[in-house]
Amino acid sequence: MHDVKKVDVMEGILDENDHIAGHVKEHMEDHGILVVNEMGSPGAGKTTSLKNIIRHLKSAKPYVIEGDIESDLDTRDLRGLGIKTFQINTFGNCHLDAPMIHNMTGNMEFDEKGILFIENIGNLVCPAEFSIGEHLKMLVSTVTEGSDKPYKYPLAFEKADLILINKVDLIPYLDFDEEFFMKGVRALNKNVPVFKVSGKTGEGFAEVAAWLESRASELTDRGHHEGHVHKHSHE
Amino acid sequence: MHDVKKVDVMEGILDENDHIAGHVKEHMEDHGILVVNEMGSPGAGKTTSLKNIIRHLKSAKPYVIEGDIESDLDTRDLRGLGIKTFQINTFGNCHLDAPMIHNMTGNMEFDEKGILFIENIGNLVCPAEFSIGEHLKMLVSTVTEGSDKPYKYPLAFEKADLILINKVDLIPYLDFDEEFFMKGVRALNKNVPVFKVSGKTGEGFAEVAAWLESRASELTDRGHHEGHVHKHSHE
Repeated sequence: MHDVKKVDVMEGILDENDHIAGHVKEHMEDHGILVVNEMGSPGAGKTTSLKNIIRHLKSAKPYVIEGDIESDLDTRDLRGLGIKTFQINTFGNCHLDAPMIHNMTGNMEFDEKGILFIENIGNLVCPAEFSIGEHLKMLVSTVTEGSDKPYKYPLAFEKADLILINKVDLIPYLDFDEEFFMKGVRALNKNVPVFKVSGKTGEGFAEVAAWLESRASELTDRGHHEGHVHKHSHE
Repeated sequence: MHDVKKVDVMEGILDENDHIAGHVKEHMEDHGILVVNEMGSPGAGKTTSLKNIIRHLKSAKPYVIEGDIESDLDTRDLRGLGIKTFQINTFGNCHLDAPMIHNMTGNMEFDEKGILFIENIGNLVCPAEFSIGEHLKMLVSTVTEGSDKPYKYPLAFEKADLILINKVDLIPYLDFDEEFFMKGVRALNKNVPVFKVSGKTGEGFAEVAAWLESRASELTDRGHHEGHVHKHSHE
């Protein structure tokens, strides 16, 4: 009985979440914004990756929402670099959800087309289950976490639209088995693009930024073609 | 309305969980078993730490429950070393809970006094919220995750009864700020013992094992003194 009630409520929460996520996505598309949900373990280098990607953006304007349990260290860090950053604190909750993003984006100004990066809570499990209105899920994995991560946290790897392997500068000091890692990734997600990067040396991030800008252009091009159809469907 | 229902159900789940956790703890004390709930991020080195600690145990017999979302890589690894290991898969759930442990320990044989190590799901958020019948929460943190972790994931550090800082062999290649890290730890948890360890070189684990064996002895000594009182209170 207790379990049935729990499952019902959880399914209700997921349905409601996906419904709101759809609104967020639509709202962002109206502004020509590609939404990227950045996921990864604590300390995987999510904020450092954002800084490195944003540095290489050529045409898309970056917007950032930082998700943290209670601190705002990363937001202060990003704002210090002149990046438009908004803070969400979950106060214990282990992932962001669509209502949180809906409330935030509803109050943000999007004066130019670009990319909204949403840094999720450092957690390799729950964020993968909750859509927050994103077009792409970007997973930041690291060589220091070990090569068995795709086998142990399959959902995050399965759902990723791009994967960064961070901290590759440390490979000489570790026993990272890249072949085993990639075998696990490919079993879950056959065609996902994988980028090797280093937050320390900066290598690899120009390619990630170029790939994301290309997706952002596709979104805006599609928006032009579909504009009227989209509007009609709401009348 | 929706939120109220969600909160009610969550509180119900936590109460029920704590009630069952109490039963687990009592059952384990009857067998002279100290229960250690091991927590940490994905790839922090939880299994490697267990192997190193167990290698140094002098009198306490080790028992292990491995929590994983769906794999059993670590269990096979530990069993290969002759360590009595049981596997729990949560199939998506991001933390272990007391009912899972209750079901497992109810079916295990504890033929000697010792220590039951329960490796929780790799997650620095949710496991800290759910008691699973443990006497001690052991947090495995790493220098590769960065020195801001106590500030960003305070609950895990606040609730820890001992903290391992793992991968200290990599310090020369990182910008780990130990003073900042420890300042964060001490603000949350004034007296928690902190051990610097390396799963690669094995350093520091003899001290952790000795500290845990000392806690296990205290438990068994207390058991002898309190035995009758404990029994009376149930009549």
